This record gives sequence, structure tokens and C-alpha cells, in this order.
Amino acid sequence: MKEQEFLQELKEINLFQQALAILGWDTQTGMPEKASDDRGEVESYLYGLAFEKEVGPKIKEALTYFENRQDELSEVGQAAYRVVKEQYDLNHAIPKEKMEALSGALSKAHGSWQKSRASKNFADFRDALETNIRLTKELIPYWKKDEATDYDVLLNQYEPNMTVEILDKVFAEVREGILSIRKTLEEKGTEPNTDFLSRKMTVAQQREFVIGVVTQLGYDFSRGRLDDTIHPFMIGINHNDARITTRWDEHDFTMATFGVIHEAGHGMYEQSIDPKYQYTPVATGTSMGIHESQSLFNEIIIGSNKQFWKKQFPFLKECAPGTFDDISFDDFYDSLKKTQASLIRIESDSLTYPLHIIIRYEIEKLIFNGEAQVDDLPQIWNDKYEEYLGIRPENDLEGILQDVHWSNGSFGYFPSYALGYMYAAQLLEAMKKEVDFDKVLASDDYSPIKSWLTEHIHQYGASKKPNELILEATGETLNPQYLIDYMKKIYFDVYKVK
Amino acid sequence: MKEQEFLQELKEINLFQQALAILGWDTQTGMPEKASDDRGEVESYLYGLAFEKEVGPKIKEALTYFENRQDELSEVGQAAYRVVKEQYDLNHAIPKEKMEALSGALSKAHGSWQKSRASKNFADFRDALETNIRLTKELIPYWKKDEATDYDVLLNQYEPNMTVEILDKVFAEVREGILSIRKTLEEKGTEPNTDFLSRKMTVAQQREFVIGVVTQLGYDFSRGRLDDTIHPFMIGINHNDARITTRWDEHDFTMATFGVIHEAGHGMYEQSIDPKYQYTPVATGTSMGIHESQSLFNEIIIGSNKQFWKKQFPFLKECAPGTFDDISFDDFYDSLKKTQASLIRIESDSLTYPLHIIIRYEIEKLIFNGEAQVDDLPQIWNDKYEEYLGIRPENDLEGILQDVHWSNGSFGYFPSYALGYMYAAQLLEAMKKEVDFDKVLASDDYSPIKSWLTEHIHQYGASKKPNELILEATGETLNPQYLIDYMKKIYFDVYKVK
Repeated sequence: MKEQEFLQELKEINLFQQALAILGWDTQTGMPEKASDDRGEVESYLYGLAFEKEVGPKIKEALTYFENRQDELSEVGQAAYRVVKEQYDLNHAIPKEKMEALSGALSKAHGSWQKSRASKNFADFRDALETNIRLTKELIPYWKKDEATDYDVLLNQYEPNMTVEILDKVFAEVREGILSIRKTLEEKGTEPNTDFLSRKMTVAQQREFVIGVVTQLGYDFSRGRLDDTIHPFMIGINHNDARITTRWDEHDFTMATFGVIHEAGHGMYEQSIDPKYQYTPVATGTSMGIHESQSLFNEIIIGSNKQFWKKQFPFLKECAPGTFDDISFDDFYDSLKKTQASLIRIESDSLTYPLHIIIRYEIEKLIFNGEAQVDDLPQIWNDKYEEYLGIRPENDLEGILQDVHWSNGSFGYFPSYALGYMYAAQLLEAMKKEVDFDKVLASDDYSPIKSWLTEHIHQYGASKKPNELILEATGETLNPQYLIDYMKKIYFDVYKVK
Repeated sequence: MKEQEFLQELKEINLFQQALAILGWDTQTGMPEKASDDRGEVESYLYGLAFEKEVGPKIKEALTYFENRQDELSEVGQAAYRVVKEQYDLNHAIPKEKMEALSGALSKAHGSWQKSRASKNFADFRDALETNIRLTKELIPYWKKDEATDYDVLLNQYEPNMTVEILDKVFAEVREGILSIRKTLEEKGTEPNTDFLSRKMTVAQQREFVIGVVTQLGYDFSRGRLDDTIHPFMIGINHNDARITTRWDEHDFTMATFGVIHEAGHGMYEQSIDPKYQYTPVATGTSMGIHESQSLFNEIIIGSNKQFWKKQFPFLKECAPGTFDDISFDDFYDSLKKTQASLIRIESDSLTYPLHIIIRYEIEKLIFNGEAQVDDLPQIWNDKYEEYLGIRPENDLEGILQDVHWSNGSFGYFPSYALGYMYAAQLLEAMKKEVDFDKVLASDDYSPIKSWLTEHIHQYGASKKPNELILEATGETLNPQYLIDYMKKIYFDVYKVK
């Protein structure tokens, strides 16, 4: 087997995936509503062809041949080999009927979840959730390598090399840090006024503003586009085509503004992967956590920066003539950083957000490493919200039914969100050693920030693991103290805590 | 071989084609500009897989097996068999190197054509055109069945069973009819005023109007969508997903209005094909000419109707408040039907349009059945414009370089446009025997018109040939007199010819 043959097979798999990505994008951005059955046929046919190749004879042969001959591969070939081997090892031994049982259960579970949301009653989702958990538990032995616990196995599907041991420690620190900041703000802080944030900004005005902002940040519209959707996402088709999406609320411009800045962070990552990896499985983000670190770097780290807003507030006023003329810069800036306990994760602010994640992490651990019964989950959920956030859901829709993840079997995914946030804060401190962050954001040229992220993160695609990237970029392993210090700085400033 | 196996193979081919259709739509409606190389890779890979199946062992086996066993096929299977056999017979014997030579030449020719448009000089396109013609001539022997002339062979690729003998006769009648109408208008007519047509209507106003109009006409937005593009088109992915596109000019609302009405006609055809044909090559329009008859029925036959505009003019005024308040209905209606000789086909009006087509038809006949030299074509083109339309291009961009067709090898395609127009006028007369056309267009319910077209044309997809459809729907073969009478009625009315 020659490297060329291996790479050609990977390219053909990748071309199917690119076609599927466009079809998926279309499905979520404006496919005619009645086209969904036919679309399902097209997608499952192409998906099947790609899957046949992924576990097919060529790939098997390549894995065997190159196992002890990696020196015959170029650097790109070696990186591709590692990713392919990992994916193959993960899934090839699973009996087909177990895989089909899960995929059948998941598609039913989505319907049950939607039904339960309508009834606001966990009972309508309970059986489906129990089945999802049971079938996932059955797969863990096939996935398991040397992980310490079953939940570690799930974690690793989204964040390679992450462990319960690490997370227990960092989440404890983050939780204590946030609770302590919240206490200080409550006792000594002054809450900012946010009334004017609901002033009307038309979609056209918001679009002009946010397109201007993300272009300055370095999202390249000649290799991307912005479309409307219901649940915003970024989809990386290849490094020349990384598309972002948003929804709009004319009485809350912050939703689309921070949403698009967030998705643009994902898009900038995909756009900046070294083109040498194209047509291989290396040409994508390395993990959910690292991906989220890039979107949150944009949304929170840059999007909470005072110098950034000093520069952008006049542009915002230009895009919405007259709307914010009576608002001082300081009042405007402070309004963006109000914090308040809330029940819904995706509506929460950048101080309380990690608490929502920690609650889910603790519950998932109980499910897979512990003894929690499915029937007890709503009570556990609600108790934890009361304990950590001081508020209690009035119904299951405000509680355990709010997220789609468990209905589609994504157990172990949630921690990525908080990991991304911690990575982002840690990357900021490392970046500051080389880049005058505030000064750059006050200037007309934001490129030093993107260049730093591209140099240390983006370019590598999936050729390095998350822990490797963080260690090399910042000189240390994951350290939650950066996030806690960062939160203190931002919120004590806005809340005028001396 | 069982029918089921044959239909399954056709379905898989069709699923590739659906994926390719979405990719093609995306390429033309907003794909990021730098994504085109990667997109080319995806498209040619999927195209190759589809082509391998189309000429592959399963299809060959099915064609052999069912050749004398068509009674083993259902009605759908039989219709599919006929279409597949025709396509296969047309192309399977062509040596691969001849096919590749043509496809290589075409992709170069497109570049030459674009270059020549920039220089406005035919010389830059000459060699590429000569090559396209030569390579096409080399394929004609492989395509030829029992056609009387080489050009008949090309015609039949777009309009099965159409012949030079028929076209010579009907085009002579149409040309004489139009020239005679134009003479009458010039001598006795009063030209309508069109000044106010350039009044500004925003894209949003135009969009509201035209979406309202095509929805009333029967285009189903739950099985379609409208997007912006540079060269408007309709693409039928399946009967639940037939998408239309347009471009906008804020100082000429008629462009997008008639453009969208036109494309919606194509879309309504694809949306109304009997679903029993889905996943087979029968599930599409039967010919370019019949397809064009449906778009032109919408755009010209309905779009020139006085009762239609009596109903729609108030809606237009509602969409563009104040813009046309000072314009009487009669002045407005007349303005839409001004006729004037023009050099550019796609900007021409509904009286002179067929002359543009006839000129191209005569030149294509000279190229393939006659002795025209490539170097003489610009002169021939210009002379014919002077003869038929009384105006002469000042450069080749206004003349022979205006259309893309010859650069992509579509010789024999042009007549479809005029055929569609003649079919549309003939269908109108047949429809009028069952539907009170003016009364329906004056009412709130246009469905009787679409129902008639679906019953007689749309539902059959490609299961009937154009001449069969026209004969069954109208009781006679193609008769150009309906078009001439129709033009007289419309233009003598607008130009107040007593």
C-alpha cells in the first residue's frame, strides 16, 4: 500500500462528508419544509457510502500496513493515520445490531423529547432517556481503552485525554470561585442598568453591525457566509467554506451580535487550519472543548473587553442612527455584563454559565458512574439549581428538558462548554505575553490576535490533542484559576466592587 | 432481474443527482467565492459515481433483460425503461476519448467566451467555437438514429421528435407573422408610455409583490424557495423541492417580476409531476420546449393578460405605497407591452423574441447542415439582425457573443425557447374550451388554470414526448398560427390598432 492510495481513500470519504455537510447546512437554513423526507433518503444513502469506506477494506489494509511502517508516511499521512486509527478502534468492534439499536432509539427519543417539552412533563421523556442510557452503557465496553471510569470513556469521545479526576478538581475550583464572586457582587456590587438594550434595532442594522465586527475579527466572508436559522451553528465544509448562522431579535440586538461573534470564532478556527491537511480527517477542529475555546474567545474574551467596545460602540451607533445617542459609553458597556441567576443554560450570562455545565456534569457522572435512577433525575436537577444558583425550576421544561443533548445520546458533551471557557481564559493570559491585547482591540487592526490563535491553535487542525495544544500554547496544563481571575476582573469592574 | 432491482439502481442514481442538484444550486446562489475549487472536486466525484452507475452493469443487464419482457414491468417501470434506454442508446457507444475531448474543450471554451466578451471581439472566441463545432460534429454519427439531417440530431437532444422540416415551416410562418404585425404597429399604432416603469421599488417591495403573485399562481413555497443569483434559473431537485432564483433592479421592477413568474412556471411543472415517478428519470420535465411552454405560459400568457393585471395592479400599488398612484390602469397595462427591436435576446419583448431565436436557428443550421465558415458567423449574425429586426450590432458583444450556449456546446437548444412560446399559445386556446381564462384571472382563485396544466402536461413528467403531450392536450400538432393570432390580439389592443 502506498501513502497515495491511503490518502486517496481518505479524500473520497472527505468528499462524501463535504457533500453531506452542504446538505446538512441546507436542511437547517431554508430547505423547503416538505422536502425533508426526500432529503433524508439522499443523506442516508451518501452517509452509508461514506461509512462503508470508513470501515472498508482499503482503510483496514492501510491501518494494518502502516501500523509498523509509519516512517513511510509523510507528516500529513502520519497525522491522518493517527486520527483514522482512533476512529476505527473506537467503532469497528461494535456489533452492528447494537449500533442500529442505538440509532433507532435516538431517533425515537427526539420525538419523545419534543413531546415532553410540549407537555413540560419529564414523564413523557423518561422511557426514552432510560433506553438511551442503557444502550449507551452497553457500548462503553467496546469504546473503553484504559479509562478509569465509564464516564471517562464518554468524556473522551468529545475531549480526548480529559478525565473525571481532572474535571472534579477544576470544576470544584470554578464552582467555588463563581459562588464567591457572586457573593461579593451581591454584598458590595452595583447592578448595571440594561433597560436600553431592548431598544429596537432592525435586522438590517444588526446585520450591518455584526458583519462589520466579525470581518474585523478576521472571519473571512470570501470563505464563509452568514444565514438565518432556528438553532445557530457553524459548519466547516472545508477551509475555504466555513459557514455561520444566526437568529435575530429586533428587541435584543445582543442575541445575534454575540451569537454571530461566537459562531465566527468557530468559523475562524476552521478557515485557518493548514491547507496541507485538506481532504483528510485532520482538517477539522481537534475537539469540542478546543472548538468552544475559539468561539468563546471571540464571544466572551473579546466581547467583554472594554477597549473592544470603546471602538465598536460608535460603529453600533452608526448602524442604528439615533438609537443609543443618549447612552454613555460606560453605561452601555456595563449593561452588557449584567449577571443574574437563570434557569436556562443558553440564556445565562458569562459568570453563571459554568454552573449550568457543572450541574449537568455531576448528573451525567451520577448516571454513568453512580447509582442515580432515571426517575430521580428531575429532583436531582432541581435541587442542584437551588443549591448552586438559588433558583428552582417550576416545571421540567425550565429544568431537565431544556437541552437536546441527552435525547440524541450526547452524554459527556456538556463539559466541553466549560472547558472551552477555561481554555479561552488561559489562552488570553498566554497571548498577553506576546500581544498587547487591549491596545490591539483599541486599534484598527485586530490581526495580531487572530494570528496568535492561528499559530498556536488553528493551524494544527486535529493533528494535536487538546491537552498538547494547551500545554504548548500556554506552558502549562489546564488551570482554572485563569478563568476565576478573569471573571473577578470583569465583574468587579462592572459592579464597581472596590 | 426483478423490476425492484432495476428501480433501486435508478433510485441510487437519482439520489446522486439530487445531491448534485443541491450542490449546483448552492454554487449559484451564494457559495463563498473561494470555495469553488473544492466544490469542483466534490461535484466531479459524485458525478463520476452517478455516471458509473448510469452506464454500469446493473443498467446494462436491466436493458437487456427487459427489452423483450416489458410486460414484467409496472407502468412506472415501463416509462422509466423507455427513458433509460433512450439515454443509454444515445451515449453508450461514444468512445471515451471523444467524450473527454469535448468536455475538455467546453471548459476551455467558457474561458475564451468570457475573454471575448471582455474584449468585445469574436476573434478571441473563434478557435474555441470552431473546436466545439468540430467535436460536436464528430459525435453526431454516434447519436444519429434515423434523423434526416445532422442538425435534426442536435435538435432531438432537447426536443425529441422535432425536425428541421417542421421548424423550417413553422418558423417561416412565425417570422412572416411577426414582421407583418410589426409593420402594422409602425404604420397605425400608438406607442405606450413607459417612463414610470423605472420608478424605484425596493427589493423588499418587489419581493412582497412577486411572492404574492406566484403563490396565487400556484407555486408552492412549502416545496420551493426563492433566492438571489446572477443568472436566474429554476432547479428541480424533486417534486417536493423545486427552487427558483432571481436578480433584482430597483429601477426596473418588471425584470424580477416577470423573471420570478417565469421561473415559477418551471417550478410548478416540477412540483406537479406525479409522485409515482419519484426516484426515476421520468420525474422531470419531458423536454426543454415543454418546460419553456410552462414558464412562458406564466410569464407571457398570464403576464400579458389584462384581467390578471386588473387584479394585480392594486396589489402592486399596495406593495409600493404611493409609487404608482398617479398612473391609470390602462396606462400601466399598456406600458408592460411596449415592443421595440433590440439587439439582446434576453432583453427583448414578447413580440420580437422569436425573431432572435429564428436567427440562431438559421445560423446553427448553416453550421451543421450547410457550409458556413466560422469566420463568417459574425457577419451572418449582423446581417440577419439587420434584415429581421432593422438594427445592427456595433460590436460582437451586442451580437454573436451575447449567449453562453455555443460556448458550452448546447447546439440545437435555442429553438426550444420559440417552441415553448408556440406551445403556450396553443395550450391557451385548448384550455379556453374548458376554463374561462379571463374570468379565472379576474377572480381570487387561479387554481383552475394550474389544474388544467397539471392534468394535461405536468403530471406526466417525462413519460410522454412533447409532440404526444401537445397532440393530446390540444387535439392537433404544433400550429404556429395560435401564437401569431395571440400576438395580434395583444399588441393591436395595446397599440390601439383598429
